[in-house]
Amino acid sequence: MNNFIFVNPTKIYFGKDQLQSLGAEVARFGKKVLFAYGGGSIKRIGLYDRVVAQLAAAGLTVFELPGVEPNPRHTTVNKGAEICKREGVDVLLAVGGGSTIDACKAIAATAKYEGTDSWDLMTGKASVTDTLPIVTVLTLAATGSEMDGGCVISNVGTNDKLGIFFPNAHPRVSFLDPTNTFTVSPYQTASGSVDIMSHIFDVAYFSREDEMDMLRRIQEEVLSTVVKFAPVAVKDGNDYEARANLMWAASWALNGFLFDGIVQDAACHAIEHELSAFYDITHGHGLAILTPRWLTYVLSDETAPLIKRFGERVMGVDPSLGPMEGAKAAIAALEEFFFGTLGLKSRLSDLGIDDTHFATMAKKACGEKGTLDSFTTLTPADVEAIFRMCL
Amino acid sequence: MNNFIFVNPTKIYFGKDQLQSLGAEVARFGKKVLFAYGGGSIKRIGLYDRVVAQLAAAGLTVFELPGVEPNPRHTTVNKGAEICKREGVDVLLAVGGGSTIDACKAIAATAKYEGTDSWDLMTGKASVTDTLPIVTVLTLAATGSEMDGGCVISNVGTNDKLGIFFPNAHPRVSFLDPTNTFTVSPYQTASGSVDIMSHIFDVAYFSREDEMDMLRRIQEEVLSTVVKFAPVAVKDGNDYEARANLMWAASWALNGFLFDGIVQDAACHAIEHELSAFYDITHGHGLAILTPRWLTYVLSDETAPLIKRFGERVMGVDPSLGPMEGAKAAIAALEEFFFGTLGLKSRLSDLGIDDTHFATMAKKACGEKGTLDSFTTLTPADVEAIFRMCL
Repeated sequence: MNNFIFVNPTKIYFGKDQLQSLGAEVARFGKKVLFAYGGGSIKRIGLYDRVVAQLAAAGLTVFELPGVEPNPRHTTVNKGAEICKREGVDVLLAVGGGSTIDACKAIAATAKYEGTDSWDLMTGKASVTDTLPIVTVLTLAATGSEMDGGCVISNVGTNDKLGIFFPNAHPRVSFLDPTNTFTVSPYQTASGSVDIMSHIFDVAYFSREDEMDMLRRIQEEVLSTVVKFAPVAVKDGNDYEARANLMWAASWALNGFLFDGIVQDAACHAIEHELSAFYDITHGHGLAILTPRWLTYVLSDETAPLIKRFGERVMGVDPSLGPMEGAKAAIAALEEFFFGTLGLKSRLSDLGIDDTHFATMAKKACGEKGTLDSFTTLTPADVEAIFRMCL
Repeated sequence: MNNFIFVNPTKIYFGKDQLQSLGAEVARFGKKVLFAYGGGSIKRIGLYDRVVAQLAAAGLTVFELPGVEPNPRHTTVNKGAEICKREGVDVLLAVGGGSTIDACKAIAATAKYEGTDSWDLMTGKASVTDTLPIVTVLTLAATGSEMDGGCVISNVGTNDKLGIFFPNAHPRVSFLDPTNTFTVSPYQTASGSVDIMSHIFDVAYFSREDEMDMLRRIQEEVLSTVVKFAPVAVKDGNDYEARANLMWAASWALNGFLFDGIVQDAACHAIEHELSAFYDITHGHGLAILTPRWLTYVLSDETAPLIKRFGERVMGVDPSLGPMEGAKAAIAALEEFFFGTLGLKSRLSDLGIDDTHFATMAKKACGEKGTLDSFTTLTPADVEAIFRMCL
């Protein structure tokens, strides 16, 4: 069992009709706010108007940054940071899903950077010691960005998608109202749910290190929560109980509650980021296609017992099976959940992806170190083989 | 399902050999520190010397407050606050269990109070808007005080034991090293473990309101963690895995992770506080005696399904039993766990308590409102009946 340091300063307003506190919470951090959002869905659900009314009532000066992309781009970050510097913005307000929040974290850091290109910070060419404060209103249960310090930004010029943790980048306050996710499509609901599960798999559960027993059990309950409620929300978007459970599960998956000192390379996420970087696909869908193939690829006498345990405790696999049989049944159950129950297409070829860039993507996924070290160690050749299993 | 607000700013260092960060963490808050501890056990395990070395290396000026009682007294709090005011103390360091930490929270508030009697703040006769910062080094897995904002203080003059949440009273930093609990006696280990379980029962699990499914499941896993590891730690105090799981379970039981907006009167705790106030018994032992009798007293067609679910998911009760049978089996299993496995004496008379003060204690437990509203509503007559079941 490892040592760990835990701290999470984000204040959460969870539930219906909590937005009346938004103006006062934003105003705690200053007078000038940059209000970032995505493609306009927040206008369709009336959230934009409610946010604007809150900011106006609090007497704030508002600058807008609309159009943050689903895989947010460093050029958009640069644009936001430029506004912050020019106007002396005090606080960022992200209204949207993980992409908008991630973009705001990178803006918050770039606004404190003497240079102008956020990519310098993403690559580590330059660093900052502080960020502007961020408040969020979440509209998608998926990335956990509403309660962590990380962000993932894409550079479409170089086909790079990089993740980083900036100092003090945890949102100061996040508003989690499940009704704001009622209009999320079945496809995005399914993809977001896979993302939640994958965070738990990648950063904690599937590890070769020993975990604290309590936390592994709790991880299984959060996974079970997704398995129970994702199908409900896919079927009926207005189911409050399902949306609420998924929303809080998403935050828990990455907010550190489940962390106990295991540090690993989040293999599936690293591999999927290459797919999203090269093909701009939905992150969670890429994870759904990759995860069962990755588990099949890494299946061995060493890894089988834990995969079997996952199957037994989360997917309802028969406990009487042996380790290898049980692990195979667990992977099959996960495939059935992703591609049957949640209705996601199961192959990269379904998304128009062929093997053109597999070798390049596999090499990039393994980074400068040349391997991904998580549940097992993967080389570029391993990653390429996993890609081929997904065709 | 209720709305809720979650925030927990405490930074946790969890694990072995983390104390090398203590000096720097305390020094973040100032130069003058009040170092509070209990009866001297921290000297026997060498922790006192390690703490003093850390504080000296950080160049801090240290004032000591030894002898904080197991049920900490308001007179001790007054003494600590007087030192803080006289010496201009910047930060409090509590090294011990929940009692020492609770005392420091009350000292931290009283140091900011223009009056001199902490009891004014405990009773609400006066209030404060701020507290001195607190750092803790935990030596007992039980109360959760290391990661929450509450404290419980006793007035031996009036036989009162009152709890309150002070503003900003969450410890800023807490050091949770399971090895610091290796020498905790089997009796205190058992009592602390009951306290952990009772926190989950009292503030969340046994409720007449609907809970978020994910959180109820997680509560069951934290309870199961205690049921699994408390007997191990009682048998072998040096079992790191058991001590680590219990330590983190104790913090989780009250740090807000398991909270989803249900507000109730924590009936068993309210009732037990009267026992500790009148007889100065170990809080967790009082809870062990009370809890199964309380559950038996409140058992009805309404409450049976949830008690049965607890039995099934935490105590290994046969799922095929009907609600009432299952609930009775759950209570029986809990009694066997407390009084058999953990070896705690099962009756108030075993602790030298008779019915002399039952009527008075029952009335005080129900407070000014006259009832305790949790899983069911209890009047003083109900509480007195529960006391009699414990004789």
